[in-house]
Amino acid sequence: MAEKKLVEAITSMDEDFAQWYTDVVKKAELIEYTSVKGCMAIKPYGYAIWELIQKQLDERFKETGVENVYMPMFIPESLLQKEKDHVEGFAPEVAWVTHGGLNELQERLCVRPTSETLFCDFYKNDIHSYRDLPKVYNQWCSVVRWEKETRPFLRSREFLWQEGHTAHATMEEAEERTIQMLNVYADFCEQVLAIPVIRGKKTDKEKFAGAEATYTIEALMHDGKALQSGTSHNFGDGFAKAFGIQFTDRDNKLKYVYQTSWGMTTRLIGAIIMVHGDDSGLVLPPRVAPVQIMIVPIQQKKEGVLEMAYALRDRLGGFRVKVDDTDKSPGWKFSEQEMRGIPIRVEIGPKDIEAGRCVICRRDTGEKIEVRLEDLEEKADEILEQMQKDMLERARAHRDAHTHTAVNMAELEDILNNEPGFVKAMWCGDQACEDQIKEKFAATSRCMPFEQEQISDTCVCCGRPAKKMVYWGRAY
Amino acid sequence: MAEKKLVEAITSMDEDFAQWYTDVVKKAELIEYTSVKGCMAIKPYGYAIWELIQKQLDERFKETGVENVYMPMFIPESLLQKEKDHVEGFAPEVAWVTHGGLNELQERLCVRPTSETLFCDFYKNDIHSYRDLPKVYNQWCSVVRWEKETRPFLRSREFLWQEGHTAHATMEEAEERTIQMLNVYADFCEQVLAIPVIRGKKTDKEKFAGAEATYTIEALMHDGKALQSGTSHNFGDGFAKAFGIQFTDRDNKLKYVYQTSWGMTTRLIGAIIMVHGDDSGLVLPPRVAPVQIMIVPIQQKKEGVLEMAYALRDRLGGFRVKVDDTDKSPGWKFSEQEMRGIPIRVEIGPKDIEAGRCVICRRDTGEKIEVRLEDLEEKADEILEQMQKDMLERARAHRDAHTHTAVNMAELEDILNNEPGFVKAMWCGDQACEDQIKEKFAATSRCMPFEQEQISDTCVCCGRPAKKMVYWGRAY
Repeated sequence: MAEKKLVEAITSMDEDFAQWYTDVVKKAELIEYTSVKGCMAIKPYGYAIWELIQKQLDERFKETGVENVYMPMFIPESLLQKEKDHVEGFAPEVAWVTHGGLNELQERLCVRPTSETLFCDFYKNDIHSYRDLPKVYNQWCSVVRWEKETRPFLRSREFLWQEGHTAHATMEEAEERTIQMLNVYADFCEQVLAIPVIRGKKTDKEKFAGAEATYTIEALMHDGKALQSGTSHNFGDGFAKAFGIQFTDRDNKLKYVYQTSWGMTTRLIGAIIMVHGDDSGLVLPPRVAPVQIMIVPIQQKKEGVLEMAYALRDRLGGFRVKVDDTDKSPGWKFSEQEMRGIPIRVEIGPKDIEAGRCVICRRDTGEKIEVRLEDLEEKADEILEQMQKDMLERARAHRDAHTHTAVNMAELEDILNNEPGFVKAMWCGDQACEDQIKEKFAATSRCMPFEQEQISDTCVCCGRPAKKMVYWGRAY
Repeated sequence: MAEKKLVEAITSMDEDFAQWYTDVVKKAELIEYTSVKGCMAIKPYGYAIWELIQKQLDERFKETGVENVYMPMFIPESLLQKEKDHVEGFAPEVAWVTHGGLNELQERLCVRPTSETLFCDFYKNDIHSYRDLPKVYNQWCSVVRWEKETRPFLRSREFLWQEGHTAHATMEEAEERTIQMLNVYADFCEQVLAIPVIRGKKTDKEKFAGAEATYTIEALMHDGKALQSGTSHNFGDGFAKAFGIQFTDRDNKLKYVYQTSWGMTTRLIGAIIMVHGDDSGLVLPPRVAPVQIMIVPIQQKKEGVLEMAYALRDRLGGFRVKVDDTDKSPGWKFSEQEMRGIPIRVEIGPKDIEAGRCVICRRDTGEKIEVRLEDLEEKADEILEQMQKDMLERARAHRDAHTHTAVNMAELEDILNNEPGFVKAMWCGDQACEDQIKEKFAATSRCMPFEQEQISDTCVCCGRPAKKMVYWGRAY
């Protein structure tokens, strides 16, 4: 009875995907709403996922020479205004501090929505010579954007992220770093989060405020909507000119630096939920699962059962493992483990002990595998590895099955309305067509993928000669 | 010549300790001042120290069952006001957000100066039964206090810290956790930072706004001034009553929870500088040194020297090790390594290679040790271990030599003015005496140490019967 209650409490994803998402976020104990409108409290289980993301992403950063720093959280208004496009993009959605203690500030400060301006202000004083380049800095922090509509992880007024900010002697080197970090992001999503992504370039309409070029990785959620999962920007020397960041080059000439920035956020947790989750709750890829193996003793009051459960836990010490020794029923424990997306459940009861075996149940497939106790470590390792791979392949198959092509507006509309997913279609390069598609179908250009295909010769919208293939879609 | 310039650029610590501190902070490249008044940019080397502090402190937390979470950075004004003493303590020094985007907020929000109120608001909804207790949560974040006078690491308008917030079923359990975390802090300071601390209780005058009891660890800096290095507070059920945090206990009665909080900050980096530094710059305890060993090749253009330096680096892979292969002179490299406080320098040149040896130079003592190349790993390990221990003992000896006793106001004044350090003196327990000492000598009660001694029978100030021995001192 008890286990039914827990499972019944979440909405089916096919019935109401938005409600299913909210249910999972709450029932898996990832977040809690707070008295601060639009801001969430990230609970221990949600934060443990973020810690695993941070650790593995930070390691990958450091392998490419990234150094971590910390800049102030406030930006004086005059600093924010130095780069014209940038301030236009961000000023409407920042939080303003006007008072410090009992006094009104002479100049108001915004809480950083992103820190390009602060890094520029820092680099201006820190970079003098070509010997000081490149600078490849990153910070882990929270940022604030005053969103009107918010959803846990996907869009909140405050969120956690990392923001990398680099400075280089040449445009070529900046471009190389921009692409390098996009590839770090893409590999991380695929290898760690088991989320396949499309790598590409944003159109001018969709690029970051102040950037010369924005690159993106785009993932497809279970409901066929796209999620921008990480972006990497090449600023050229635009910010350097606005802030006066110059260096003396080898040829003794004073030159402006070229800059990049790149970021990933707690939004990734939303992506994990919406790519891998099912009607029993969360499904976590083993590499970001705070608990990879939950051991559930069956008839735990019988002699020797709990002892065996603890002994197995100790043997599985190389994994993130726990024993559920609470006084709940096994069925209740099963559905809790499922709701929390713990990759492997190990069931062990008196009969298993007698037979010298246990049962491993895979969270993603529900498959039950009988394992001899002496093979447990090896089997657990094998199954977790397999699960990590299978989850990526399953997500890739889902994405491919939900990627269509359209050669005209009628086809585009038909697909967007009836078979949600990515639509590959040609584009003339004119923003008017992009605007029209957005207005008519509420779909946006997700990216111009690096891997271009020739779907047709003409723009899906205006019929003029096409220049680029674009991924279109409705997006979070 | 070059090396001289670098060394000469810092003020001697005995000449002007404050200027010496500022010089070290800048020349060791720990921080940079920013356009945001009172806020600093933490540079890669400074942040790497913080990362090592975080990692080792977080591990110790998790061993005691702490779980990490993340609460919003904003506190609605009405929430801040719920606990009377707390709001009085913090309201005068918070930054207020009054506008979100283009609109004025209905209720202004302060940027968290500390998060008791947010955790209380969260616990109110999250705790229902004794089964939900204890809650032992912590977050790593930045906080803002609108200080008038600021100094890098010691006092800045924004700083990084961790804040633990716990909830318990009984007062005893809360008190136990309060002391447990104080001991974690003390052990961490001594074992990792090589900083000896006095553990004790704050007087009512000095306790945290809203706390029933505040415990502290107090360290003595090289100049004889005290630095409060970590605090742990027992709130009793005061906050629980103000916020209505109740649970149903085993006896089916509704009860208020008992709470604690405890924090340590980037101020610890200031403590490391001021306890261990010398006139050549920073001296880092090996356990928090981002680079533990710097290999400096001598006559590096000679055949085989750089190759040997790299080979040694590879052999020392178990440590945090680097080769300084820049084109600077060895002397310049030496003074840079000294300025940055890197514990061990390994010098290797053509003659050393021929003789099958190298020279290890200890940063703390300047001692040069000839080591046969085949013994290098073992010797390096031994020396780093020894250095970690010696630094703690040296700091302890300095503190003990600068701890005096006073039995009356004349003695107290004489010591404070002529032999800066801790003064142990008896106290009647009356705040009037505490106020008087502060007013006359600008010294405060640092703590009532757990290890009490009987210095005399009467209060150092008023001569009435004494109740407690107190550590007094001038403090940062």
